[in-house]
Amino acid sequence: MPLKLNSRDANFTERFRAFATAERAPAADVADTVRRIIARVRAEGDAALIDLTRQFDRTELTAETLRVPQGDIRAARKSLNRKTLEALELAADRISAFHESEVPKSRRFTDAAGVSMGFRWLPVDAAGLYVPGGTAVYPSSVLMNALPAKVAGVKRLAMTVPTPDGHIDPLILTAADIAGVDEIYRVGGAQAIAALAFGTETVAPVDVITGPGNAYVAEAKRQVFGQVGIDSIAGPSEILVVSDKANDPAVIAADLLSQAEHDPVAQAVLITDDADFAARVEAAVAEHLETLPRRDIAAASWAQWGAIILVEDLIAETGTLVDRLAPEHLALAVDDAEALADTIAHAGAIFLGRHTPEAVGDYVGGPNHVLPTGRQARFASGLGVTDFMKRSTMLHCSRDGLDLIGPAAVTLADAEGLDAHARSVALRLGQAPASDRSSDPAAR
Amino acid sequence: MPLKLNSRDANFTERFRAFATAERAPAADVADTVRRIIARVRAEGDAALIDLTRQFDRTELTAETLRVPQGDIRAARKSLNRKTLEALELAADRISAFHESEVPKSRRFTDAAGVSMGFRWLPVDAAGLYVPGGTAVYPSSVLMNALPAKVAGVKRLAMTVPTPDGHIDPLILTAADIAGVDEIYRVGGAQAIAALAFGTETVAPVDVITGPGNAYVAEAKRQVFGQVGIDSIAGPSEILVVSDKANDPAVIAADLLSQAEHDPVAQAVLITDDADFAARVEAAVAEHLETLPRRDIAAASWAQWGAIILVEDLIAETGTLVDRLAPEHLALAVDDAEALADTIAHAGAIFLGRHTPEAVGDYVGGPNHVLPTGRQARFASGLGVTDFMKRSTMLHCSRDGLDLIGPAAVTLADAEGLDAHARSVALRLGQAPASDRSSDPAAR
Repeated sequence: MPLKLNSRDANFTERFRAFATAERAPAADVADTVRRIIARVRAEGDAALIDLTRQFDRTELTAETLRVPQGDIRAARKSLNRKTLEALELAADRISAFHESEVPKSRRFTDAAGVSMGFRWLPVDAAGLYVPGGTAVYPSSVLMNALPAKVAGVKRLAMTVPTPDGHIDPLILTAADIAGVDEIYRVGGAQAIAALAFGTETVAPVDVITGPGNAYVAEAKRQVFGQVGIDSIAGPSEILVVSDKANDPAVIAADLLSQAEHDPVAQAVLITDDADFAARVEAAVAEHLETLPRRDIAAASWAQWGAIILVEDLIAETGTLVDRLAPEHLALAVDDAEALADTIAHAGAIFLGRHTPEAVGDYVGGPNHVLPTGRQARFASGLGVTDFMKRSTMLHCSRDGLDLIGPAAVTLADAEGLDAHARSVALRLGQAPASDRSSDPAAR
Repeated sequence: MPLKLNSRDANFTERFRAFATAERAPAADVADTVRRIIARVRAEGDAALIDLTRQFDRTELTAETLRVPQGDIRAARKSLNRKTLEALELAADRISAFHESEVPKSRRFTDAAGVSMGFRWLPVDAAGLYVPGGTAVYPSSVLMNALPAKVAGVKRLAMTVPTPDGHIDPLILTAADIAGVDEIYRVGGAQAIAALAFGTETVAPVDVITGPGNAYVAEAKRQVFGQVGIDSIAGPSEILVVSDKANDPAVIAADLLSQAEHDPVAQAVLITDDADFAARVEAAVAEHLETLPRRDIAAASWAQWGAIILVEDLIAETGTLVDRLAPEHLALAVDDAEALADTIAHAGAIFLGRHTPEAVGDYVGGPNHVLPTGRQARFASGLGVTDFMKRSTMLHCSRDGLDLIGPAAVTLADAEGLDAHARSVALRLGQAPASDRSSDPAAR
């Protein structure tokens, strides 16, 4: 049974706070294990990857077979039916088109002091993409991680994917091929992250690592942060559906289950203003579950983490509640969804209106489906092209410009006791270095 | 003596690689200590802050005196001389103006399929700024961290600063006041980061934490990453000066020392094409050092981490070398600095021409002085307004738009075995749910 909250209840504020801040997936303490794995890969290179892959994935590799050969990728593509291939290609085209709109512009301008300044955006040289192995096979995630890097202009894109018992899904290889991934390595876990961050004999290091993974992968990304850039640490998925009674309960139930079916600790929440509609959605969820292939996962998520929140005024009350939850996915199945969206600050991705299921955004909408979870939408954005780019600032003083602003720099350098800073400006202004300036209390 | 490299030497490639990848400040292993401090602050709140501040900063606080009162801030401002105040205000105005140019635009567009999409940038609700205590007093860093948050539109800005033996510098309080910091707390170290991330009875939690600090602060930021957003992990400062022989050696020497004086593990590097000029710069460094107040620090940095790299062709060879070092600060003291900058991809901030000392950028140029160090400019940007903002994506399908792109979403959901995803789209398309689709191998 999902949690039932009613904003008219006396203890609502308290119960809602407890619900909003409950930790669904406490971080496992794998820091020491991960530290040892990273140290081993740094010290032993390929040999460590081969040994750890034997141990964790029951797969025998050599330095020569670490990388998936081009022939396997071609064979994978041929094994797929045309409909699936065309859907992947449509998705890739639409994702690329959307991400083109995100590419930031460089700027340069000259201010009133005659100082020219600005910034320049450029891609990183190489990006690494982690793809999880195991039962979940998500070619859409390969597209969502690789294509922003390609659109950013990244020249080299390396992917790692564990191949438990030697198995690798043709959908994964094909999505990588469509997205323009340059290299694919059969390695997973913290060892894959270490290889991408520090390099081995076979795997050249990259500059940014993105992609979802288990607790070991997440901790490894945290530990290599600084050596490389990383995307945010992904937690279990979540959806918040805001619906009036004008929707089909079976449709809204499917929306809720589309996240619940990901993970027993995924979260699906409904906010509605109609108690009868809420009851009908709950019944529809139960009905879907009877025939849903992933019913065990979805039922566990719905029972333990699901919630139905009844409010009096959907338009007036929703904004505050949504911002407290800062959901990864927010669906607004109401008439004036745009106006309702304007009352909300924190959500990873917003799906507007009655004809925009979150699932369409998972595959072919265009915006990225790698999104901040666990209330990180308060401060984090979904994956985008700027995760694969960096900004250099530019400053160019003319002689006159330095005359205008340089003296203040000397004053502040003196106040901070940084005499070489002051000298580098003062000498250009034709002033003698005043080596005792900073020890002069009057300089304060 | 700084390292001397010559690009014409046979072993140059090898020696340059060793130089470029040398680790100047190996991370101290303080993870466990920091974990304990964070756990204590989460469990005990203010009481932990008070106890740890007594222990580390020899300062006796109560819940009432944790926060610096407005009266102290006013008194600090009054204690400064007018010239320093005016310089701080000029700096604040110029920093704000530059960062206004960085504010990203929201976008919305409708594509050929009739699907409306885009993204929306909004500020985070609250930001936390860490300011180091101790001997280094850098009001400029207060401005550089706080003003981008203000320009981003952040409503609440909380600052923490340790007050060893009860001391807090009036320059720090005044810079915070000028920058519009709303709350200042007398606490430092990992305990300050924990308080900002998780909150205590007195300190409300924030969404993003920025600002430099020692190894404990850096590790604490790493550990709370995910709970809040953080800026990059700052290492010791560095400058790379590219200079032809037309500059005054004393000026270029001051540029080099302006970073060397920060830290014994700071790094100053000169690339030039003139051996005689290189020798004159080296002599000028020695001469400056004789009268430099921070000569011990600067001399240690220059001797152990400084370098002079002699090349044959300054314009042709510089780009590759700079990109390998990916310096925090890059000064191009040559005639056509703009053309030279076009050959370079990786640098945090670029100072162009003969009249743009890096130090002017530290204070009053406009661009941020919080920049990626330790080769992080390969993938990271300096601090900017987007560090205090986040992007929500938007998607709005019309009924016709969903008819066009929905079927491909169903195909991909089926291929991934996510039946509730498929249903949420198929039901809207008027298709019956096909609960056995995902188990059908032909769906591949």
